[in-house]
Amino acid sequence: MAIDVKPIEPDVRHAQCLPRQALDLISDRWTMIVVKALSEGIHRYGELHRAIGGISQKMLTQTLRSLEHDGLVLRTVYPVVPPKVEYALTPLGETLIEPLAAISDWAERHMDDIVQARRRHDG
Amino acid sequence: MAIDVKPIEPDVRHAQCLPRQALDLISDRWTMIVVKALSEGIHRYGELHRAIGGISQKMLTQTLRSLEHDGLVLRTVYPVVPPKVEYALTPLGETLIEPLAAISDWAERHMDDIVQARRRHDG
Repeated sequence: MAIDVKPIEPDVRHAQCLPRQALDLISDRWTMIVVKALSEGIHRYGELHRAIGGISQKMLTQTLRSLEHDGLVLRTVYPVVPPKVEYALTPLGETLIEPLAAISDWAERHMDDIVQARRRHDG
Repeated sequence: MAIDVKPIEPDVRHAQCLPRQALDLISDRWTMIVVKALSEGIHRYGELHRAIGGISQKMLTQTLRSLEHDGLVLRTVYPVVPPKVEYALTPLGETLIEPLAAISDWAERHMDDIVQARRRHDG
């Protein structure tokens, strides 16, 4: 007897769904901001820390490790004294630039509207 | 004496920058998922709660209040017994659908690559 198996459509609304896990991974302000900085060609740890206002060293290290773990960032250690460590987006990480830019553009374009909405709501 | 004032370019990397505040607002998994559900025409609180797997009532209420506060969601109370409450995206909220879909599509398209990267990294 042939059983008609309906393919399961991924649906990010469901907790166990894999794409939602991917969403979790990137729906983090620091992930977005670090990927943006790397896409602009900032590669050394110290440079990243200076370029990204307000991020603690702990949080930057944690964000970079998590991006490395997920295959979005490549960490290269050069055997020199003092050690030189560089971070770069992998090809997979580069696929994130465009969708993150869409979110970032939206934020720049609509922040005034949101500030006004908050004032109306609070006032 | 004329002072040449250079316009300040918004740069989401800086902590105090307004677009980063907007980024914070939307870089939250539940915000993304609730906006997606509303964009599909799910409007009642109970429907939203059932449709979104794994969200607690507390978190759903909090996310909807925050979206309302920011002018992205409109809450309408109908004077009937029992009270009927509906949530819908405002025109401002609708502008979020497209950039969020870009992120959501990326997550669906690349989750396998990320799972594989994690295995390589851990194994």
